[in-house]
Amino acid sequence: MENLQTILEAVSAGYITPETARQKIQETGYQSVAEFAKIDHQRQERTGFPEVIWGQDKTSEQIARIIEAMSQHQSVIMATRVETQVYEEVKLKIPHLRYYPTARICALGKPNPQKISGKITILTAGTSDLPVAEEAAITGELMGFPVERLWDVGVSGVHRLLNNRHILDEADVLIVVAGMEGALPSVVGGLAHCPVIGVPTSIGYGASFGGLSALLAMLNSCAAGLGVVNIDNGFGAAILAGQILRTAAKIAAQSK
Amino acid sequence: MENLQTILEAVSAGYITPETARQKIQETGYQSVAEFAKIDHQRQERTGFPEVIWGQDKTSEQIARIIEAMSQHQSVIMATRVETQVYEEVKLKIPHLRYYPTARICALGKPNPQKISGKITILTAGTSDLPVAEEAAITGELMGFPVERLWDVGVSGVHRLLNNRHILDEADVLIVVAGMEGALPSVVGGLAHCPVIGVPTSIGYGASFGGLSALLAMLNSCAAGLGVVNIDNGFGAAILAGQILRTAAKIAAQSK
Amino acid sequence: MENLQTILEAVSAGYITPETARQKIQETGYQSVAEFAKIDHQRQERTGFPEVIWGQDKTSEQIARIIEAMSQHQSVIMATRVETQVYEEVKLKIPHLRYYPTARICALGKPNPQKISGKITILTAGTSDLPVAEEAAITGELMGFPVERLWDVGVSGVHRLLNNRHILDEADVLIVVAGMEGALPSVVGGLAHCPVIGVPTSIGYGASFGGLSALLAMLNSCAAGLGVVNIDNGFGAAILAGQILRTAAKIAAQSK
Amino acid sequence: MENLQTILEAVSAGYITPETARQKIQETGYQSVAEFAKIDHQRQERTGFPEVIWGQDKTSEQIARIIEAMSQHQSVIMATRVETQVYEEVKLKIPHLRYYPTARICALGKPNPQKISGKITILTAGTSDLPVAEEAAITGELMGFPVERLWDVGVSGVHRLLNNRHILDEADVLIVVAGMEGALPSVVGGLAHCPVIGVPTSIGYGASFGGLSALLAMLNSCAAGLGVVNIDNGFGAAILAGQILRTAAKIAAQSK
Amino acid sequence: MENLQTILEAVSAGYITPETARQKIQETGYQSVAEFAKIDHQRQERTGFPEVIWGQDKTSEQIARIIEAMSQHQSVIMATRVETQVYEEVKLKIPHLRYYPTARICALGKPNPQKISGKITILTAGTSDLPVAEEAAITGELMGFPVERLWDVGVSGVHRLLNNRHILDEADVLIVVAGMEGALPSVVGGLAHCPVIGVPTSIGYGASFGGLSALLAMLNSCAAGLGVVNIDNGFGAAILAGQILRTAAKIAAQSK
Amino acid sequence: MENLQTILEAVSAGYITPETARQKIQETGYQSVAEFAKIDHQRQERTGFPEVIWGQDKTSEQIARIIEAMSQHQSVIMATRVETQVYEEVKLKIPHLRYYPTARICALGKPNPQKISGKITILTAGTSDLPVAEEAAITGELMGFPVERLWDVGVSGVHRLLNNRHILDEADVLIVVAGMEGALPSVVGGLAHCPVIGVPTSIGYGASFGGLSALLAMLNSCAAGLGVVNIDNGFGAAILAGQILRTAAKIAAQSK
Amino acid sequence: MENLQTILEAVSAGYITPETARQKIQETGYQSVAEFAKIDHQRQERTGFPEVIWGQDKTSEQIARIIEAMSQHQSVIMATRVETQVYEEVKLKIPHLRYYPTARICALGKPNPQKISGKITILTAGTSDLPVAEEAAITGELMGFPVERLWDVGVSGVHRLLNNRHILDEADVLIVVAGMEGALPSVVGGLAHCPVIGVPTSIGYGASFGGLSALLAMLNSCAAGLGVVNIDNGFGAAILAGQILRTAAKIAAQSK
Amino acid sequence: MENLQTILEAVSAGYITPETARQKIQETGYQSVAEFAKIDHQRQERTGFPEVIWGQDKTSEQIARIIEAMSQHQSVIMATRVETQVYEEVKLKIPHLRYYPTARICALGKPNPQKISGKITILTAGTSDLPVAEEAAITGELMGFPVERLWDVGVSGVHRLLNNRHILDEADVLIVVAGMEGALPSVVGGLAHCPVIGVPTSIGYGASFGGLSALLAMLNSCAAGLGVVNIDNGFGAAILAGQILRTAAKIAAQSK
Repeated sequence: MENLQTILEAVSAGYITPETARQKIQETGYQSVAEFAKIDHQRQERTGFPEVIWGQDKTSEQIARIIEAMSQHQSVIMATRVETQVYEEVKLKIPHLRYYPTARICALGKPNPQKISGKITILTAGTSDLPVAEEAAITGELMGFPVERLWDVGVSGVHRLLNNRHILDEADVLIVVAGMEGALPSVVGGLAHCPVIGVPTSIGYGASFGGLSALLAMLNSCAAGLGVVNIDNGFGAAILAGQILRTAAKIAAQSK
Repeated sequence: MENLQTILEAVSAGYITPETARQKIQETGYQSVAEFAKIDHQRQERTGFPEVIWGQDKTSEQIARIIEAMSQHQSVIMATRVETQVYEEVKLKIPHLRYYPTARICALGKPNPQKISGKITILTAGTSDLPVAEEAAITGELMGFPVERLWDVGVSGVHRLLNNRHILDEADVLIVVAGMEGALPSVVGGLAHCPVIGVPTSIGYGASFGGLSALLAMLNSCAAGLGVVNIDNGFGAAILAGQILRTAAKIAAQSK
Repeated sequence: MENLQTILEAVSAGYITPETARQKIQETGYQSVAEFAKIDHQRQERTGFPEVIWGQDKTSEQIARIIEAMSQHQSVIMATRVETQVYEEVKLKIPHLRYYPTARICALGKPNPQKISGKITILTAGTSDLPVAEEAAITGELMGFPVERLWDVGVSGVHRLLNNRHILDEADVLIVVAGMEGALPSVVGGLAHCPVIGVPTSIGYGASFGGLSALLAMLNSCAAGLGVVNIDNGFGAAILAGQILRTAAKIAAQSK
Repeated sequence: MENLQTILEAVSAGYITPETARQKIQETGYQSVAEFAKIDHQRQERTGFPEVIWGQDKTSEQIARIIEAMSQHQSVIMATRVETQVYEEVKLKIPHLRYYPTARICALGKPNPQKISGKITILTAGTSDLPVAEEAAITGELMGFPVERLWDVGVSGVHRLLNNRHILDEADVLIVVAGMEGALPSVVGGLAHCPVIGVPTSIGYGASFGGLSALLAMLNSCAAGLGVVNIDNGFGAAILAGQILRTAAKIAAQSK
Repeated sequence: MENLQTILEAVSAGYITPETARQKIQETGYQSVAEFAKIDHQRQERTGFPEVIWGQDKTSEQIARIIEAMSQHQSVIMATRVETQVYEEVKLKIPHLRYYPTARICALGKPNPQKISGKITILTAGTSDLPVAEEAAITGELMGFPVERLWDVGVSGVHRLLNNRHILDEADVLIVVAGMEGALPSVVGGLAHCPVIGVPTSIGYGASFGGLSALLAMLNSCAAGLGVVNIDNGFGAAILAGQILRTAAKIAAQSK
Repeated sequence: MENLQTILEAVSAGYITPETARQKIQETGYQSVAEFAKIDHQRQERTGFPEVIWGQDKTSEQIARIIEAMSQHQSVIMATRVETQVYEEVKLKIPHLRYYPTARICALGKPNPQKISGKITILTAGTSDLPVAEEAAITGELMGFPVERLWDVGVSGVHRLLNNRHILDEADVLIVVAGMEGALPSVVGGLAHCPVIGVPTSIGYGASFGGLSALLAMLNSCAAGLGVVNIDNGFGAAILAGQILRTAAKIAAQSK
Repeated sequence: MENLQTILEAVSAGYITPETARQKIQETGYQSVAEFAKIDHQRQERTGFPEVIWGQDKTSEQIARIIEAMSQHQSVIMATRVETQVYEEVKLKIPHLRYYPTARICALGKPNPQKISGKITILTAGTSDLPVAEEAAITGELMGFPVERLWDVGVSGVHRLLNNRHILDEADVLIVVAGMEGALPSVVGGLAHCPVIGVPTSIGYGASFGGLSALLAMLNSCAAGLGVVNIDNGFGAAILAGQILRTAAKIAAQSK
Repeated sequence: MENLQTILEAVSAGYITPETARQKIQETGYQSVAEFAKIDHQRQERTGFPEVIWGQDKTSEQIARIIEAMSQHQSVIMATRVETQVYEEVKLKIPHLRYYPTARICALGKPNPQKISGKITILTAGTSDLPVAEEAAITGELMGFPVERLWDVGVSGVHRLLNNRHILDEADVLIVVAGMEGALPSVVGGLAHCPVIGVPTSIGYGASFGGLSALLAMLNSCAAGLGVVNIDNGFGAAILAGQILRTAAKIAAQSK
């Protein structure tokens, strides 16, 4: 509704009819796909990032039709939480679709590099956390950000982290992925001078209760200023990291 | 341990003894207060923000002695979650201590304004969320950031938010404080083009289970990229917001 | 037991024996199917809606025999939560049985349109919520109500909802289906001037805890007067909506 | 925004300037009270019921100032969850304020009777549930509805309910308040031919877990079509009941 | 409704009018106290035990009036979960009321000894469990049963139990009261040849979660056939034990 | 250790050596099966019921070997929670083994009728509760008790229960099996004059949380004296019911 | 029962009567205090540590009488979780009783130093964890062990721990006390070559859920071999540590 | 960093360059395997036990490559929580790999017997607990400790435990494995004079909630000094037991 004043002046000047103005004001900026989905084409404009398809609990038919509709408006299209079998069904209809199996992401199109300096640095506590970390990494790359990866530096051997301290020192924004007791973000948060995003994972058993243990640990971190996302939500962490870098660039530009 | 090479070269050159070097390398950067606390004077250097006293579950005696020790190194000292009575006891020993009753923060010294453009914008869903929002606001101000407040714009009257959309549009980083069903950050997250930090509060009753309802809502937000902190943790949200703004300064410096 | 006075007067008058009267008074209004089920034929009379078969945790043998018994008394018979395979086994015995795969409902017979004006309007937050929303929609239609559908208008793109505000304005009763953070009913509840029924779904992952997140959000809604049903209970929402519309007919009759 | 077309035609006709039109379109319909509250004067227009003050976690100062601001627009003002002491503090500033101690409601002004037929019938399982039931009853009465009360008819002596069956038969909408095992709404739901709203209460101990037991029971009711509100939320139940009666009247009017 | 045939024959014979018969059939067997309570005088007849007042969450005014009403029909009246202060207020109106402070029970009237052999044996794991155990013991005694007590025989010193094995051997029904890990009923259940009722208590701290730990332990007991009641529910355990002993009397009568 | 005095007198008299006495005193009354199991042959003597095999989480090999070992000492052997496939594997080794598929019990040998009057009456709320109810029924029958079944009398059609009230009146001990909101035992408990055992089942979905809803409802029942067993634990309910009947018979015998 | 053979030989030899032998065998080794407690004098013999009074939920009367009874058998008596007021009441009866206010322990008598080498080393993450850590420390000292304390070395400033690494290296058994996210034991467990005992504390707020967060973190630690005790259970940790040192000494003695 | 002084003296003496010294000081002691894992070769040195592979949630490819890398440094390599199929895939690449199916462990190499006296004694409550107990036993044996097993001595037949009391008396450290109500460690803890480690298992159903019941029971044990590990964590229990025995060796060495 940014152009409201402009539209109104056009009405006042008689360039457009009141009826046309009403339609413009109510213009929705979304596109219906069959009756089951409304693609939010304004999201990129509003939030800086395009709409992304949440693949879980959608049929391959639904995913394919949404991708087709999106492909008329977006240069990069991605769907998260897509199992291999679903990917293969969708690929029958969209042959150029590619798949990142560890990250369970399928994508179409080439990312446009962001026109800002700054990269996303991603750490994992263990090898088992890779699928979530890769979801974050691929998302970041598809959104056009450089991504640095550092895997398996959990707190049971804290020297592995301390000996990579230069990576922490050089980071612009950190995503720290950990399951089980979820302690790594607390240790990192006490060492880093940039924003830290904690991603609890469902890795563990017994009293990990599907990632609850790691989630609670990160929410209760004694390291001030940790931002936490949902269990296994690598995607959300990457979007938050990207949002931070975009904002920093904007402020940096203002400061010049 | 950044200067390790320097120290080692000094040893090699014979300027300092191995013993002195060992002490320097192991030098801790913390100060013991009686036996019960170790003040982390390096934290500002490591993370960009000084150590802050978590006032809950500490005696007024302990708080007073920690403040005294800190006051030799920090220009601004603050303690969170301090009840009025505890504040009054501490004030007997530290007369200049001041108190922000809504925020339950006590502080000493004047903040140094941050040398970066960019402000922290804080929203609440309701009037009852003010104590948590003020904890965030006062923390932000004590750390030297400009803070903008917008209270009582919850989703049950969504026009109150939409009519303040310019505030969202102008924000650099948003802290959104909400109890009960915790829906406001999701709506804001779908509208804002800057990082959004959700702070669930314990406001509510019955099935709010002390803020669990709002916490889960924010973790499961369909608005991608929401960073969540602990229930009622206005302090942590402000530090994360500040960390995001500080990153801008670093990126600006890199870009030059 | 409404006719108790009538029965007693018949006894008094000697038209029926005490024994016959006792049987009439104790007459149960239910029909035993084998030993495993007692069909409640009085339910339509008591509550306005016939008994419906809860298909989950029943064998196809049990479902078939209950449908057969019901088909002697009811014009429309339906079973919910029936998987495709179970439907196919039951269909072998009841060839006219039809199936609504998205809604997982199987049904027999034609609905009688309700003799009242008023329709049920159903919204979903996302595409993944369709199975639950369709369970509500098909139930409503089988009970004889007009149903209007509006899918994928969740709060992460709130303009999709606001631009369909005429649908809210024209609604008689609203069923709002949402998973994840379950915020849509709160926003709708702040806009609608008719009863709103919230249906949390199990759509989500991690800290959605099988729909608990959405359920708690709806129970704690700041929009007063939201009625909530069980997670994924589209059926129950439709019956409540129908009950609300039927009350209108009763009040209309009283007002004449 | 209902009058958008009208406003635009006024612009087109030159009766108002584009600037004035923009203000009208963005006109919020809320009133700021100090900086801590935004009273939603449009709520009555949007939803049929005026804004009500949630008294818990507000200071008496805040409540008094909000009541004063509301009293310029609303004929009846009410605040829920107000403890006796808070009421007495507010009363010092607003002498006409009255208090319903069992319901913990304070109110100002006289209700306007609704111009529709239909009443709200409220049941409790036990005597201990009275505070929640009275919150519903007083809310209903302040909103202008007739209210019928039936207390202490819980399922451990089911004849107490069955012998009041005529009250169920004559009800237009039922609010059923129960703590502990929360079974009463299920039994009522199987007998009533009008909408039933279940209100779980926190009455109980041990494994009632603050009302969780009753809440879960109502959500899982085998009586189809029960609408559930938050634990102890008598207020919300009354608003839902009122909304149902208003809608029924509207449909009844349309049907003539 | 046992005498339905009799009543109907009286109608048929003209001894009573249909109207009188209807009243008799619908006769409720409860007594309204003000509007807030309905005393269930038939409960003794139906279940073998009179109605008992649940004192928690009732005002002393309410308790006093219910006791007064009950005292016209019952020889023994008791109220559970009554705090000392409430008791003292009630006693002002009912001077003969007596109080069992450990059990938090107040009572009026003398128990009639049950006409059956058989006693209730009550064990506790620790000294801290006494209030709950005494609630069971006093309830049992007020209902007319002999009660045997054995305190502080928890599993951390299992010889204390084994050396009292004759008490187990001579028991007719056992109530085993335990907090913390709630293990005692499992050990007793493996030794006893009579029914065992487990009463979890809220004694403990930390991960006892208000008695949840003991409750879950008893529900999951490997000793088959343990009946469990709510946390701290000594009263319920005594009624169940009494019900078991009364069944003996009935079977004895049948066997003759 | 009942015969301790006898053994000691035998030692004193020189009939047995101290060594023999020590072995007798320490004689365990159990039999090792391979190294993985110790069959508790004394359990029948101690508790009145023989050891029963908990089939879940045991291999078919383990079950077969335990049955073989038991078959030398017990006339009836049963294993619970045995899936069809496991049964078929065990049957290859123990050809006479029979299977009750609804109850998931396999058994060997013929029950000896108990020499006492009294039967076990079992009710279910719905058809879906049959597997748990049948586990109780078959267990009762294998232990030698008469069992009466009454299925599908849940509270949503409470007349189905009330019209079978003679079954309640004639019961000696009642097992009431219910899932979802678990309300049936409360209603039954208010009507019955014998002990009532509640068995919550995992039947339900969403907020039933695997039977938690029904479990909490039964624990919080307002009907005093309900004994509750674990979710889906039909077996345990039958053993408790049997224990009650055995005790009643014992007391009845003492009373003569 | 260790001397069973001896007792039996004495019977066989006629030195003692069978009756005397029976009493000896059944000799309980506990002492009844009034009827409410059975002091377990054999516990020291069985487990190496004397019985300790759990002060919570006991009256000062009960504590005083148990201490008096114990003081005839034990050289050191201690009670845990005793509030100041209770201590003062008990002290009126037992004037020599002393109190450790931070640890909430009261004690009588002097500890006998253990005749073994080895000490207990206790760490806390923060200053607020002191009460729990002191409960462990005082317990250890009263049991006769040397105790080393290291406070406030939590992971948000991991250099505070690393710079005290020599304390870890010299430890025989470590007790690590931490609230909030409970990460410290994981880091310590990855560095220490002795047994590590984790004690979660209830320090925190919001999603710490009374210590649940720290508890789950320790149970899910990626550092293998962490032994965890209940939330706030400093006492239990000290007993386990003491047990470890005693066993080590025993094995060390055997190895010579 | 133990040799820091040595390294520095070498720098000072000119034996090594500052650059070489820096590398030595920062030398990490871990080995990267591809990019997904960092093997912690220093763990044995730091903690006394080598790194062990947590097999769950790793691909067979990852496990194989980590084993290969480890096999250059460790004499014994083991992976836990490895399903049969994964084992078979890994074995294709590492033919000497062996598998313990009950324990779900695969291993390579021969254990070196520990040079200390002392053994690990493992008890289970039931036969179904064997997989967890065997995980502990095989881990202990692979680490070089003697292991004694005692299966199926749960509390429902407590004589099975009491008759094996000599095993308790001779134990150096006890691991007690129990599911369901988890009571066995409490009983053992009251009898044993050595450290007791409780391992809750997920054996059970219904309200065992995946082992939560047993876990809570052990955490709340009235037997002081029980150390608890995660649900089903036999591995962790064995490492803790081993750590306890190794401490004995250290103390023995100190005592000389």
